[in-house]
Amino acid sequence: MAFVGKSDRFNGVTVYSRDQNHVENFAENLQQSLEQWDAEKKRGVWFKVALEESDWIPVLAKNGFNYHHARDGYVMMYKWLPTHEASNIPPYAHTMLGVGAVVVNEKDDLLVVCERYNRITPWKLPGGYVEPGENFVDAAIREVYEETNIRTEFKSVLCLRHAHGGQFSCSDLYTVICLKPMTEDILKDDREIHDCKWMPIADFLAHPDIHELNKFFVQKFLDNRRDGVAIESKHGIHQLLKKPYTVYHASTQTSSKM
Amino acid sequence: MAFVGKSDRFNGVTVYSRDQNHVENFAENLQQSLEQWDAEKKRGVWFKVALEESDWIPVLAKNGFNYHHARDGYVMMYKWLPTHEASNIPPYAHTMLGVGAVVVNEKDDLLVVCERYNRITPWKLPGGYVEPGENFVDAAIREVYEETNIRTEFKSVLCLRHAHGGQFSCSDLYTVICLKPMTEDILKDDREIHDCKWMPIADFLAHPDIHELNKFFVQKFLDNRRDGVAIESKHGIHQLLKKPYTVYHASTQTSSKM
Repeated sequence: MAFVGKSDRFNGVTVYSRDQNHVENFAENLQQSLEQWDAEKKRGVWFKVALEESDWIPVLAKNGFNYHHARDGYVMMYKWLPTHEASNIPPYAHTMLGVGAVVVNEKDDLLVVCERYNRITPWKLPGGYVEPGENFVDAAIREVYEETNIRTEFKSVLCLRHAHGGQFSCSDLYTVICLKPMTEDILKDDREIHDCKWMPIADFLAHPDIHELNKFFVQKFLDNRRDGVAIESKHGIHQLLKKPYTVYHASTQTSSKM
Repeated sequence: MAFVGKSDRFNGVTVYSRDQNHVENFAENLQQSLEQWDAEKKRGVWFKVALEESDWIPVLAKNGFNYHHARDGYVMMYKWLPTHEASNIPPYAHTMLGVGAVVVNEKDDLLVVCERYNRITPWKLPGGYVEPGENFVDAAIREVYEETNIRTEFKSVLCLRHAHGGQFSCSDLYTVICLKPMTEDILKDDREIHDCKWMPIADFLAHPDIHELNKFFVQKFLDNRRDGVAIESKHGIHQLLKKPYTVYHASTQTSSKM
């Protein structure tokens, strides 16, 4: 019995293992399905295989399927059927997102942390990974709160740093957000943070052991404040998709935000 | 016989299926290995399983392994061994990167395309996906050349748009790059592009059917030019890792780049 998949606008088809009932002979069903899809001139054929149906995977592999991506609980495998047309399937996400925060109080002290498991650099900016579905600014505010208990609000985006060949062989995009502290008293997260304090910006910039890129980010904060420029954030709703988005763009600072 | 894995600085261990010779009884070896790693107080245990060894996957799944990620040719599965410590393994990349290009010539004409497979919007900016390991600017220059045959050079970054719930359930980060055209004659890519032309910016901004976000990006080009601000790009080599990186930051334009 051939599988009933879900069609897409690229003339592809996706079979969800979770939607199939009592598959008795997977190899035979797959064979029949592939013949049928071939006759129907389908292009990309996809199998989303849940952990519970992982027996399917070696059979799919033997039938010319490759891995596209995997997440908690499933693997997505695909096969490109056309023989006279190159595959136009884009690779899956290959960039890890991180955030750092430049949090400066009214005395021009900077909030700095020393990580528990990474003490090569003595002091650095608080920060961490962006969660799936999270905005940069929300991630920065969350990480600062988790690591230091300081509550903050958004001022501007300072920098983005893009590099390649990082964790899991991914590229790495690190966004530095300027936040305004709303509280003063630090309560550090002992699990992740070895030490945390308010440090005068001048001391941070003069410290011999602080990483030069961290100094660059803080110097940018000072430059932007002097020059009255910033990368601002603007929320909107996509005209056609009706989904929220955030746009970041450079602006001269005419408002009181700086 | 227990597997010999590669240890990491987080007290984890990774087994590469490709490095193992003649695994006769995978289930039994796995059992022995797990007992040994447990006794050694290992934390994260990883199996990188090549397509050819996909028989291992159902066995790993039955032994409490989950999927972390997959790419062309392999699946990475993991199991967190500590029972009194929550897993601190970050999720894999979950953001697709795209680029668009604002290419404006000396007559203030904008390079616009109409896509073959997506003709809801009549005219839009040229662009596409960022390849693994590619920089935004290189991706924008490449896409413009592939789609239109126009050669360009970098001027500035105009905007970033971040949204969630896109293709493959990933988030989506779209970077708009301002490029200066070095050639004039369009030769469109028939496979991807239905039509392509130089359009006066004023006509683009006044067109009733062009997407408002596309207009916003072009308006930002005009605003930044008027205000003398931009998001610039700076290349460097990481002090400790000795790897190249690119930093993007806001600046006032004192140079001749605008």
